[in-house]
Amino acid sequence: MSLVTLQDIRDARTVIGDRLVRTPLVPSAHLSQRTGARVSLKLELFQQTGSFKPRGVLNALAALPPDERARGVISLSAGNHAQALAWAANAIGVPATIVMPATAVQAKVEATRGYGGDVIQTEGDLLATTQHLQRERQLAFVHPFDEPVVIAGQGTVGLEIAEDAPDIRLVIVGCGGGGLLAGVAAAIRALCPRARVIGVEPVGAPAMHESLAQGHPVRLASTTTIADGLAAPFAGTHTLAHAQAFVDEVVLVEDAEILDAMRTLMRHARILPEPAGAAATAALLGGRLMITPGDHVAVVVSGGNADPALLKSLL
Amino acid sequence: MSLVTLQDIRDARTVIGDRLVRTPLVPSAHLSQRTGARVSLKLELFQQTGSFKPRGVLNALAALPPDERARGVISLSAGNHAQALAWAANAIGVPATIVMPATAVQAKVEATRGYGGDVIQTEGDLLATTQHLQRERQLAFVHPFDEPVVIAGQGTVGLEIAEDAPDIRLVIVGCGGGGLLAGVAAAIRALCPRARVIGVEPVGAPAMHESLAQGHPVRLASTTTIADGLAAPFAGTHTLAHAQAFVDEVVLVEDAEILDAMRTLMRHARILPEPAGAAATAALLGGRLMITPGDHVAVVVSGGNADPALLKSLL
Repeated sequence: MSLVTLQDIRDARTVIGDRLVRTPLVPSAHLSQRTGARVSLKLELFQQTGSFKPRGVLNALAALPPDERARGVISLSAGNHAQALAWAANAIGVPATIVMPATAVQAKVEATRGYGGDVIQTEGDLLATTQHLQRERQLAFVHPFDEPVVIAGQGTVGLEIAEDAPDIRLVIVGCGGGGLLAGVAAAIRALCPRARVIGVEPVGAPAMHESLAQGHPVRLASTTTIADGLAAPFAGTHTLAHAQAFVDEVVLVEDAEILDAMRTLMRHARILPEPAGAAATAALLGGRLMITPGDHVAVVVSGGNADPALLKSLL
Repeated sequence: MSLVTLQDIRDARTVIGDRLVRTPLVPSAHLSQRTGARVSLKLELFQQTGSFKPRGVLNALAALPPDERARGVISLSAGNHAQALAWAANAIGVPATIVMPATAVQAKVEATRGYGGDVIQTEGDLLATTQHLQRERQLAFVHPFDEPVVIAGQGTVGLEIAEDAPDIRLVIVGCGGGGLLAGVAAAIRALCPRARVIGVEPVGAPAMHESLAQGHPVRLASTTTIADGLAAPFAGTHTLAHAQAFVDEVVLVEDAEILDAMRTLMRHARILPEPAGAAATAALLGGRLMITPGDHVAVVVSGGNADPALLKSLL
C-alpha cells in the first residue's frame, strides 16, 4: 500500500488555498509550567466548521473527476465530517448528501443543513442507507478518514506545525479513524525527522491501538467514550499503514482525563474544545508520555463542536 | 505633549523580545457572515497573564534607571494590571508591590501572588496607600496606562495587526484608561493610514468619550459596567492626546451588548473572553459602525480573565 508523501500534502495545501484557516500554533504558559516542556497548542478548533475535517474533504472533492463531482457526493456521519462535507461541497458548488442517524444531536443536524448539506436521517443502518442512496443517485462517496487524499488533506495540519515550529520534538494528536494522525505523522516524519508523533485514543475506543498490536485493522464490537469524535469502531487500512510507518506510539486516556483536560484548556488556555479536541492534552497531562524538559511539544486541539451543556458543567 | 512614534513602538517590541506571545489574528467566519466584512480577531487573551497588559509593563520596566529598577516597582490595580506587573517584574527579576482593594476578587489576588507579586490589600484609599508605600520604600510607580512607554508597549498589538493584515481597513479596540487604544491607534495610523481606528467604551464608563467631547481629561463621578477592565473613571492626559490625534471615534456599548458579544465569541469563536475583551465585538455587532462590505476588520479581544460563574451563565 502506498503512503502519502510530503508532496501529496503540499499539493493538498495548494488545493485548499485560502479557503481554510491557517490555524495558529499558540504557546501555553500553563501547560509548559506543568510539564517542563515548551508546549504549544495547534488550535484547529478555529478551522472552518470548527474542526480539522474540511482539510481532507476539500482535497478529496478536488480529486474527483469533474463528472462525478457534478453529480454530487455523499457520506455518513453524526459529527464533524458531516459539517465539513456540507461546508466544503457548498464552498466549491458541489451538491452533498449526508446520512445521519435519527438520534444525531439536533444542533449538528441543523449546522450541517445550515452549511447547505442535504441531510437524510435514518433509524436504520447508516452504511446500508448510504450505499443505497449512493447507487440510486450515482453519488461519489467521501470517506471520513480512510482515503489517501483525505489523509493528505489532514496532513496540512502537520505541514503548518513544522513550518511554525521547525524545532518541534513531540507532536500529540487524537485518533478516531486515524486520518488526522496519519496525515500529521506523514508530514512531521518528512519535515522534522527528530520529532516523535504520538496518537491518543480513549480507553473505550482503542481501534488503532488494537490494530497496531494485532498488525491488521481491528473492528471493535462496541465503543464507549465521551469523545464522540474519536469513537470510530475501526481503524482504516490506509490510516493503519501510516500509523505503522510514521507513528511512534498510540496511548490511551480515560474519559475522566479528557474531561480534566477540557477543564484545563477552558480555564487556562481560554478556549472551548470538544472532548475529542482535548484528548491530546489529556495524554500530555496524564504523565505517561516521556517529556524531555525544554523540548518544544505541539498538542493538536482538533475541534470545538462541544455540547454547550457539557462545557457548562465543566466551568 | 509628544506622541508615541512608530519607532517607539518598534523599540518596545525589541524590548519585549520573545518574553511575550505574538498573539494570532484569526478569521471569524461567523462574524464575517453577520457583518459582510472580513472579520479577524486579535486574540490577546492568549497573552501571558491573559491580557495585553504585560506588553506595556515590560516596556515601562525596561525604561527605568537600573537603580530604580533594583529597588523595585509598585502599582495599584484590582485586575489585569496587577497580574501583568507581578508577572513582568518577576520575569526580569524586579521586586513588585501591588496594592489591591480588600474587596478584590480572591482569584485575582491569588493569581497576582502566584506570579510573584507582593500584594498589599487595603480597605482605605488605594492611591493614598500606594503613594505612602512608594515614598516609604522608594519604589518606582508603574502607571497602568498613562505613560508614553506603556502606550508604546501596548502599541505592539497594533504593529502585529498591521504586519499580519496590511490590508486592514478598520480596527476596533476597547478603551478603559486608553493605553491599548492609544498605542494601537499610533501604530495603525503610521502603518495603515487608510484604516479607521474605533475605540469602544461601556455606556456606564465613558471617560474617553467625554474627554474627547470636552477637549480635556474628564474624571467621572462614578462608573458602572460589567466590564471591570474598562471601568477606569478617567482618561489619561497622554492617552487622550493620542486619541485626539489618531482615533477616528469612540463609541459606547451597553452592558447587555457586551454580554451578547461574549456569548457570540464563546459559541462561534470558541474562546472565553472577559467582558472588557468582548466590548469591541459588541460594537461591531451593534450595527452603529459603518462597515464596508468585504473590508478587512480587526477586532481586538483584549483579555480573558473572566469570572467563571459569569461565563457559565452565558453558555
